[in-house]
Amino acid sequence: MQGRWRVGPSGTGGSGFVRIGEYLIERLRAHGVEHVFGVPGDFVLGFYDQLERSEMMVVNTCDEQGAGFAADAYARLRGLGAVCVTYGVGGLKLANTTGQAYAESSPVVVISGAPGLAEREAQPRLHHKVRVFDTQRLVFEQLTVASTVLDDPATACREIDRVLGVAVRQKRPVYVELPRDMALVEVPRPAPGAHQEPLPRSHPAALAAALAETTALLAAARRPVVVLGLEVQRFGLQEKTLRLIERTGIPVAVTLLGKSAIGEQHPRFLGVYAGRMGREDVRAYVEDSDCVLLLGAPLSDVDLGGDATPLDPARTIQVEAECLSVGHHVYEKVRLADFIGALADADLPPRDAVDLPRPPRDDAPTIPGAPITVARLFARLAGFLTDETVVIAEPGDALFGAADLPVRQCAEFLAPAYYASLGFAVPAAIGAQLADPALRPLVLVGDGAFQMTGMELATAARFGLNPIVVLLNNAGYVTERLMVDGPFNDVLPWAYHRIPEILGTGRGFAVETEGDLDAALRAATAQPDGFCLLDVRLDPGDVSPALRRLTARFGAAALAEA
Amino acid sequence: MQGRWRVGPSGTGGSGFVRIGEYLIERLRAHGVEHVFGVPGDFVLGFYDQLERSEMMVVNTCDEQGAGFAADAYARLRGLGAVCVTYGVGGLKLANTTGQAYAESSPVVVISGAPGLAEREAQPRLHHKVRVFDTQRLVFEQLTVASTVLDDPATACREIDRVLGVAVRQKRPVYVELPRDMALVEVPRPAPGAHQEPLPRSHPAALAAALAETTALLAAARRPVVVLGLEVQRFGLQEKTLRLIERTGIPVAVTLLGKSAIGEQHPRFLGVYAGRMGREDVRAYVEDSDCVLLLGAPLSDVDLGGDATPLDPARTIQVEAECLSVGHHVYEKVRLADFIGALADADLPPRDAVDLPRPPRDDAPTIPGAPITVARLFARLAGFLTDETVVIAEPGDALFGAADLPVRQCAEFLAPAYYASLGFAVPAAIGAQLADPALRPLVLVGDGAFQMTGMELATAARFGLNPIVVLLNNAGYVTERLMVDGPFNDVLPWAYHRIPEILGTGRGFAVETEGDLDAALRAATAQPDGFCLLDVRLDPGDVSPALRRLTARFGAAALAEA
Repeated sequence: MQGRWRVGPSGTGGSGFVRIGEYLIERLRAHGVEHVFGVPGDFVLGFYDQLERSEMMVVNTCDEQGAGFAADAYARLRGLGAVCVTYGVGGLKLANTTGQAYAESSPVVVISGAPGLAEREAQPRLHHKVRVFDTQRLVFEQLTVASTVLDDPATACREIDRVLGVAVRQKRPVYVELPRDMALVEVPRPAPGAHQEPLPRSHPAALAAALAETTALLAAARRPVVVLGLEVQRFGLQEKTLRLIERTGIPVAVTLLGKSAIGEQHPRFLGVYAGRMGREDVRAYVEDSDCVLLLGAPLSDVDLGGDATPLDPARTIQVEAECLSVGHHVYEKVRLADFIGALADADLPPRDAVDLPRPPRDDAPTIPGAPITVARLFARLAGFLTDETVVIAEPGDALFGAADLPVRQCAEFLAPAYYASLGFAVPAAIGAQLADPALRPLVLVGDGAFQMTGMELATAARFGLNPIVVLLNNAGYVTERLMVDGPFNDVLPWAYHRIPEILGTGRGFAVETEGDLDAALRAATAQPDGFCLLDVRLDPGDVSPALRRLTARFGAAALAEA
Repeated sequence: MQGRWRVGPSGTGGSGFVRIGEYLIERLRAHGVEHVFGVPGDFVLGFYDQLERSEMMVVNTCDEQGAGFAADAYARLRGLGAVCVTYGVGGLKLANTTGQAYAESSPVVVISGAPGLAEREAQPRLHHKVRVFDTQRLVFEQLTVASTVLDDPATACREIDRVLGVAVRQKRPVYVELPRDMALVEVPRPAPGAHQEPLPRSHPAALAAALAETTALLAAARRPVVVLGLEVQRFGLQEKTLRLIERTGIPVAVTLLGKSAIGEQHPRFLGVYAGRMGREDVRAYVEDSDCVLLLGAPLSDVDLGGDATPLDPARTIQVEAECLSVGHHVYEKVRLADFIGALADADLPPRDAVDLPRPPRDDAPTIPGAPITVARLFARLAGFLTDETVVIAEPGDALFGAADLPVRQCAEFLAPAYYASLGFAVPAAIGAQLADPALRPLVLVGDGAFQMTGMELATAARFGLNPIVVLLNNAGYVTERLMVDGPFNDVLPWAYHRIPEILGTGRGFAVETEGDLDAALRAATAQPDGFCLLDVRLDPGDVSPALRRLTARFGAAALAEA
């Protein structure tokens, strides 16, 4: 690799040249990425060295899985996240976290080192190789919206800009493979913006037509309702959406994935819509509406509570990132951001306030000696949320129970409510708090999921973070126990509250009663210097009504026959 | 799905019919699989229910990664292993462990539940889905030698037999996806052996020609040597190989992956060949030989100590599972098993015993107060190996230091010495001991790797296993530290020896001195009732000579430019 590409010791490049690895770091920084999560390994050590010498902060986790989930959370809050690992043994550990990022529209850049091009020729059996040198890239092609191998100095910078651009525009993960002998190759620095692709725009006439039809339907509707989903947050449309709600007064619900797309103290806020799984009054309000406007809210089986079609398409306007349908017809080339912006400014009649269903409030005072229950746990947690709390919920009862927690501002609720991978919550707290150091994570996690990745508290401790982890300890996989039970739903009970003794930092609390819970939450709030872990010991038969409703439907499917 | 397929409550099928899930279990049992590792999830719960009702034992681990590694170890000892998980969030967590099984020829059956065929039509946005319903299968096509989706009752049994047959014949992983509404469908039971494919045979004339050339070269050689690799173990050729050695008296070395292919007390045993990384006397003996016979030993960069071609092809006979080359020419259709069998019976002159290099012995008595070192750790461990010890070594100094541990019998050493994924050793101990309950695992693991999967000790405890885990605690990723250092090679120090207090069982030992080590090993040996965890606190600068040699070469590559 000679010729017009220059090599030399790190940092000597003149302003006209840049090393490929350094260009990748520069471009990530330009997109707002200040932290890279990962685990080092020999095929990526040269790039790690470049990261260390840059302004980027490297956050090495216990396992690559933790890094992947942390980057996912970071991307949800920052608009882009990055995880960087070695070839094979590192990259393939990220298949699941990248699958989740794809499924839930989280723009994560997966960076993997790889064997150098030169050494592949000399020795085809290099360690960490599976089948062919391309195996890992072929895997990630299935899990990302763009991928590249930086194997050509002539195109490396353009390729970096291309895939980062796709991630930012499509809000999904991308894959960058960096052969280790390319990281230090110097190439001519591209002119700023040289590879910038114009943002795709809506077709003006299609946008106008869709807008006209939508405003007519909304104006004519007797009881319209807006449902916000995750794309509102991913595309940063919270302000435009809020303007739409405030100008029109239309009541607004959110999906589980879209929770915190609007502050829940807003007078027009209805609650979380999740079909029969969610609150009955919210379900009835949405499903009985004569005009449901779904904004950035693709609906999954979980969102619909296991029902197939509770929403009548004839009364539904479905606006997604790349697709807009009204009733049974589709508008193409109408983009979510353009549409919401136009709708917020459209001429729509303001509506009078209507009586909206309100979540049942449990303000009953603590009964110090009463055994703690799921219902009372969430009732008490509600009182401890502040404007600085980001709630991070693991799939299962941690998530379903949290659905009605009144989060205070936008972007304060993170959960994999569609892909639903266990093991997300604790590492996500690391990514979330590094993405926004003003936030303090409140992590809700089951014991089964905690046994997967909970020891990433070690990473939180190393990097000075202070999540409050509320562990719903119900002796195994309760969500599954309600569907099909067997000893495979059991896990070994750990003395979770003593984990701080292993890690040499943090505080643990054993919570058996309401009094224990209050004391622990007060102590955790007063203790900003490290993580707090509350081992909340629940009766294994005590589950939220939402979970019981969902598992009744899903359990039947688990044993169904074709 | 009606017609000739029957449905009904479990266990009602007459002998002429069998449910698809139950047939899969039957066929695994017929191949010697008695344990299935995994984590349950809703798309696979029906099959888990079938597993529980069968003779199969379900071993649920803390995380799917642990299940994948346990199944890999089980497969290496049993000839077939199985891991069973749910769709997406379970399956994709197995990409890395399956990659390792592929790279290191371990026949693991990956079984994944999946959405039912009927429900996919009703709702395309089902939870756990990444991009398309086929995404996971497309990923596993890259990581396995055969894959199938059991979406057709007419072919399901044939497909099960096909993929299991490929796994057993090719000794590599396969993928079986089971839509949940198919597990309980009853189909006509195939006649025994109906789908059995004949084992591929060698071409008789090619075999004879290869044999003639090889015997001539061996007979003429002044100082021939045999090197055994992992395929000897995978294809169960240890006895034939031993017969070859005993009949001819040719000295025999092993690769790291082939270690324990022959008992190391054998008088013709040379040691582990690993190029410049290994012992110098073994390297010299092999590389100076005038005829090197490599049996089932594909050589990687690690095996060759980072050198490209230390073995002269003109003096090398390379016999692999599906390829045999002598010097610069290749024989096709000659199979490893046939060739070794024929060679063991061939007319070769017995050789006189020659003086072979012997490993340096460190029999110095314990100095109780002396700080423990890597060298002394391995010297002391050597004395604690018994005929019932299976040594399981994690990549890094745990592995390189263990290279010269004198294992006592065949199949007593397990390590991912080629693919080299961290996190293998602790979960592998679970798989190994369940595969052969007569064995007690001695696990050698670094602190970085332990933080990935070490908490699977909880699974070992739940299933009554008693590994002795020796944790080489050197404050981070020492292998990498020797190549390129930075804070990314640090990990939070854990009080590892206190983990038994978290798990409520097992014994922990803090080992600072030689005296501590002896006492802990004696106590562990005397304590068969649960796991023992020795936190061996090493000076971070104290590494094995082998690791220092390897990282000098690999470190240069990490910072090399194209």
